[in-house]
Amino acid sequence: MTLELLSSNRSFGGWHRRYRHRSSTLDCDMQFAVYLPPQAEQGERLPVLYWLSGLTCTDENFMQKAGAQRVAAELGLVLVAPDTSPRGEGVPGDPEGAWDFGLGAGFYLNASEQPWARHYRMHDYVVHELPALIEAHLPVSERRGISGHSMGGHGALVCALRNPGRYRSLSAFAPISNPQDCPWGEKAFSRYLGEDRATWQAWDACTLLAGATQKLPILVDQGEADSFLETQLKPLALKVAAEAVGYPLTLRLQPGYDHSYYFIASFIEDHLRHHAAALRQP
Amino acid sequence: MTLELLSSNRSFGGWHRRYRHRSSTLDCDMQFAVYLPPQAEQGERLPVLYWLSGLTCTDENFMQKAGAQRVAAELGLVLVAPDTSPRGEGVPGDPEGAWDFGLGAGFYLNASEQPWARHYRMHDYVVHELPALIEAHLPVSERRGISGHSMGGHGALVCALRNPGRYRSLSAFAPISNPQDCPWGEKAFSRYLGEDRATWQAWDACTLLAGATQKLPILVDQGEADSFLETQLKPLALKVAAEAVGYPLTLRLQPGYDHSYYFIASFIEDHLRHHAAALRQP
Repeated sequence: MTLELLSSNRSFGGWHRRYRHRSSTLDCDMQFAVYLPPQAEQGERLPVLYWLSGLTCTDENFMQKAGAQRVAAELGLVLVAPDTSPRGEGVPGDPEGAWDFGLGAGFYLNASEQPWARHYRMHDYVVHELPALIEAHLPVSERRGISGHSMGGHGALVCALRNPGRYRSLSAFAPISNPQDCPWGEKAFSRYLGEDRATWQAWDACTLLAGATQKLPILVDQGEADSFLETQLKPLALKVAAEAVGYPLTLRLQPGYDHSYYFIASFIEDHLRHHAAALRQP
Repeated sequence: MTLELLSSNRSFGGWHRRYRHRSSTLDCDMQFAVYLPPQAEQGERLPVLYWLSGLTCTDENFMQKAGAQRVAAELGLVLVAPDTSPRGEGVPGDPEGAWDFGLGAGFYLNASEQPWARHYRMHDYVVHELPALIEAHLPVSERRGISGHSMGGHGALVCALRNPGRYRSLSAFAPISNPQDCPWGEKAFSRYLGEDRATWQAWDACTLLAGATQKLPILVDQGEADSFLETQLKPLALKVAAEAVGYPLTLRLQPGYDHSYYFIASFIEDHLRHHAAALRQP
């Protein structure tokens, strides 16, 4: 596993870096971004927060717009932002060029249907291949947290809930909370997973949460002025599922906030502190 | 003077807004962005920091990438980010489509040469027309600060130094400090102002600083790993000019930092506090 360094920017006493590597899981070249806080140069192996971005994003949106580096530098957290789908020649996209399916819209699952099954395996990439690479090449520990936005909020919830013990902390911004029951999720799941809705359950945060064995506390922020709130995101379905089984979910509805990175930037500090508190526990 | 609201995003308890208006100075429609901190809804008229962006930027770069809203919300500072040149049909750009002249590269001066003189009057727009508009329509006081990056750092220095009394605070990130003596400046000045270098002096921060009557303290941050440092930016020329006349300039060379917004984000808090301290003085 080799890692090609693409760029390096000093940031809050640490480094923002972009890398490229060959992904065997996705069968294509992938890029990702890392923020290494100043503590990374002091020999300590640091905890890592994985950030999963939303539809149409790449590794760049979060690093450029969330303003997370300041607090990560204070807390000694490494940040890792993968891309949102496989990319490159030979990777099929939506035949009509839609922005909510295919390239930039991998939905953090393992596709079972053709022609998607060969490359669209973002779950295994995010949960297994990328952390193995990060832990082999960078000064990080095996203490992992995961968060994300919108499609990436769904991804964070599903990756953590499907893999008990793999993450120590979990949060999300405006997640697609019940994808089996919203247009974005139905479009993606029916193509990646096929028409049998029974198979969708294994990728739906509400269903997974209802059967969770590890009860990792979840912090969710949701803007009340988010235009996708009622049709696509449905955080109240997650709340109902959590209350039914006594799952520790904190859902904060933020008046006036929308779906943009202006919303994320306003509350990222709370999320980083939520993660650091869990990741730093002995 | 009417102001068309284009978008509005809640941010750190305040509002990020984008507006469009007809500029009589530039003879075209212009867009700009404003951050209104939470205090703007409490009836107080707030001080304003004008931010001038660099080559190729629009009003969006600073608002999305600098992470300035958090501290502006704390300090009760309004932020205003204009575009970097006139725009639209009928506004001439560089005939060869260069990124360092014409559209996105107005250099914050008043052009005297054709075909630029009609639209390229960014100095008067930034110093007079835009503040008049802001002060007529938004809950702001006449306490103004100015800052910027690269070409916008040059702009901030020149706007303040040419107009004593108009600004109460001044700073810059990696400014083009001596444009009459660097390739970017020579290209722009020779076209906008003509070949007579004597006329360039009135738009060069080093020359203006040497003759300044009002000695507004200047904070400048400059990354030492900035690839434009020696050929284009030349902050040491500004330092020499300041020392020759006892002008209060603080030039901070930041090891490892480059020319990107990762650099700006790392030090924007210091600049906002520098401005607020002066703007809040009785």
